[in-house]
Amino acid sequence: MTSTRVINFGAGPSALPQSVLEKAAEGLLNFESTGIGIGEISHRSKEFSAFLARTESLIRSQLNVPPTHHIIFTQGGGTGQFSAVVYNMLARHRLLHPDLRDDQRTLDYVLTGSWSKKAHEEAIRLGGANVHVAVDARSYSKDGKAFDNIPPHAEYTFSRDPAMIYYCDNETVDGVQFSSDSNAPTFFPFELLKRRANSALLPLVADYSSSFMSRPIPYLAEHAVIFAGAQKNLGPAGLTIVIMRQDCIVDVDVAAKLGAAPVPKMIAYNTLADSKSIYNTPPVIPIYIAGLVLERMAELGGLTYFEDLNKRKAEKVYAAVRAGEEGGIFQSKVQQGSGSWMNVVFNILGEGAEERFLAGAEKEGMKGLKGHRLVGGIRASLYNAITAQDVDKLVAYIDKFIDDEGNKIPS
Amino acid sequence: MTSTRVINFGAGPSALPQSVLEKAAEGLLNFESTGIGIGEISHRSKEFSAFLARTESLIRSQLNVPPTHHIIFTQGGGTGQFSAVVYNMLARHRLLHPDLRDDQRTLDYVLTGSWSKKAHEEAIRLGGANVHVAVDARSYSKDGKAFDNIPPHAEYTFSRDPAMIYYCDNETVDGVQFSSDSNAPTFFPFELLKRRANSALLPLVADYSSSFMSRPIPYLAEHAVIFAGAQKNLGPAGLTIVIMRQDCIVDVDVAAKLGAAPVPKMIAYNTLADSKSIYNTPPVIPIYIAGLVLERMAELGGLTYFEDLNKRKAEKVYAAVRAGEEGGIFQSKVQQGSGSWMNVVFNILGEGAEERFLAGAEKEGMKGLKGHRLVGGIRASLYNAITAQDVDKLVAYIDKFIDDEGNKIPS
Ligand SMILES: Cc1ncc(COP(=O)(O)O)c(C=O)c1O
Ligand SMILES: Cc1ncc(COP(=O)(O)O)c(C=O)c1O
Repeated sequence: MTSTRVINFGAGPSALPQSVLEKAAEGLLNFESTGIGIGEISHRSKEFSAFLARTESLIRSQLNVPPTHHIIFTQGGGTGQFSAVVYNMLARHRLLHPDLRDDQRTLDYVLTGSWSKKAHEEAIRLGGANVHVAVDARSYSKDGKAFDNIPPHAEYTFSRDPAMIYYCDNETVDGVQFSSDSNAPTFFPFELLKRRANSALLPLVADYSSSFMSRPIPYLAEHAVIFAGAQKNLGPAGLTIVIMRQDCIVDVDVAAKLGAAPVPKMIAYNTLADSKSIYNTPPVIPIYIAGLVLERMAELGGLTYFEDLNKRKAEKVYAAVRAGEEGGIFQSKVQQGSGSWMNVVFNILGEGAEERFLAGAEKEGMKGLKGHRLVGGIRASLYNAITAQDVDKLVAYIDKFIDDEGNKIPS
Repeated sequence: MTSTRVINFGAGPSALPQSVLEKAAEGLLNFESTGIGIGEISHRSKEFSAFLARTESLIRSQLNVPPTHHIIFTQGGGTGQFSAVVYNMLARHRLLHPDLRDDQRTLDYVLTGSWSKKAHEEAIRLGGANVHVAVDARSYSKDGKAFDNIPPHAEYTFSRDPAMIYYCDNETVDGVQFSSDSNAPTFFPFELLKRRANSALLPLVADYSSSFMSRPIPYLAEHAVIFAGAQKNLGPAGLTIVIMRQDCIVDVDVAAKLGAAPVPKMIAYNTLADSKSIYNTPPVIPIYIAGLVLERMAELGGLTYFEDLNKRKAEKVYAAVRAGEEGGIFQSKVQQGSGSWMNVVFNILGEGAEERFLAGAEKEGMKGLKGHRLVGGIRASLYNAITAQDVDKLVAYIDKFIDDEGNKIPS
């Protein structure tokens, strides 16, 4: 089938597999032969309950989520979780240490880009604790102000017994990501944390919005909370996945009686977990599409398949960017070893060259390559639905662009 | 086209127009000829921005929303708004009266059913104010404990200068609704409130989740906030609409400095309004489907058309239920004049009769008629997508059921 569909390198909402969309289109009118569309069926019907359970188990099996951890489907996006983690982790800390003053409770933030920075700002807004920056990657950047690196382990200063240690696995705007290779210096310092912690239950919280289901999550079982908006690798916007360890599901009302801030019902983890994600009406269509994406992933070979594919895709694009850099046409924005597999960011040098790059790409049916408005430049997002062929097309285009621009430079 | 689709009388998620679902199925793969599906396109693209603006204006024109009021698209459902209204209205009150103590601020709740009761419970959970019950309809019920009526105006006791006056237009579980006829005793006591208020800007908040877009909203311009989950008349679950008057959009961070509770970013009305609903990634597919529903509504004649249609639909079903009641087969659950146009609730008397009713309906392709698990019985939800023909089919079935059951009663 020749398609009028373009290749969408957008950073989110982002490309979804065509086969999934075709199946979802049928489900809109008739969900699993119920005669009722997926957008119309009761979230308490046996058919939807079964679908929800299957979707949960597809995440659990592919990510290897242990029974200590619940998997929750909710609304509000990554942004909603910036607040939720603060409330819930402070409620947990309150129950563990009822007698501490607010300024004796600490939230540790690892700042590696725009998204962890936003989460950090929300913690400051909400108050109720001392907010500590465990490390700020900007201090280690080439220009002293950009988020262009994952800092060396020696630079992290974690608090003693913090209520939360927060990081963002993949910084979608800045193109910086923790490595998945435990020997790399840009791997998250899990071992260091474990050595320092006075409990096996680390209060470790990770924003996986833009890398969820793109490869396995290292040290998943050591995390207190992992959250992700669905709209990158998993599905459409409007669905948020939260994986939470059992000890982080506390009675927030009891914590409030002890002095913690009351927690809005919809973001209290005990509400969400106790009701198994249907305390209120869940975002049924986004869950459905995410479920179909997960089924397709499992058919293709699960996370091992996607890890391998995503690695190769990223390597190809970085190689092309490096060639452009050597040719004096491009400028990489991220330090070696800190580059994201999901969002490859670079600048194009020379007057009008960026516009030429974008217009040329669009002409060849490739969209969404413009960098985030905060940082500009080019961003190629290579989420799961971007195929090896799509990347080959992009790389061929980049190669040709470098050639063409190179010829323009007066020799 | 003969359809395998059943008639879905469910209370939400609920039926959507088939023509809309067919169009949405196309948009899933190719949104307005962009070559990108609606679930994949950037929420900041010009195509989606235009769609969002059009959707807003379709609500504005059909509901006659004045320029004093913003229309916001967000996530979290009606339940999310139970918390949001408390935070935002208390922040507003704090800025108006910075020197009052928390126990001098009052939130007035009008309790007419399970949903206003839930909202009331959330206000108590969140604290920060004195929560007052302006009226509790259970005191005026036939059995002294059910929510089966809209109380007489003389029974409301509103506070002096409350931070909020809260009511739910249509109680989806209990089948009770305020009348739309300003002369009826079950019309909301707007005039009484206006006379008592010391400001033209009433802090009046209404949950319209299950009646939004089913008929005009009386005294809309006098409301501070009107909110609704989309999953009844408007679209699929995962989208929440909030209409908020300009003076309710306050700087919640300034209010917090004055002692109000900090407001989670995602439910702060100033965040949502200032960013025109795209502070973070909005639920794009639910917005799309709601937009298509609104376009279709406008084509059919707008709210006048639906008001008339919904009135006739409800009258027919109530007449059938009354006949069943007279025959000793049914028992209406709601007092005369308080019955909802959207959710008609009744009991079926006699051993096994309810199961027979439901099984028979299912056999004829009518689903979703089981009452809410809290109250049992039968509930027929007659939202906009339920056609006059669908209702005729239901009424014919009810008539026949009454006949059949009547014949079983030994004479
Ligand atoms: C890493 C990361 N965290 C959080 C967010 C915010 O997610 P949302 O827009 O769903 O609130 C994003 C959005 O792109 C993101 O990339
Ligand atoms: C009147 C009313 N308010 C609030 C809600 C809660 O909405 P949600 O499930 O979207 O949180 C409902 C749900 O049915 C409702 O009918």
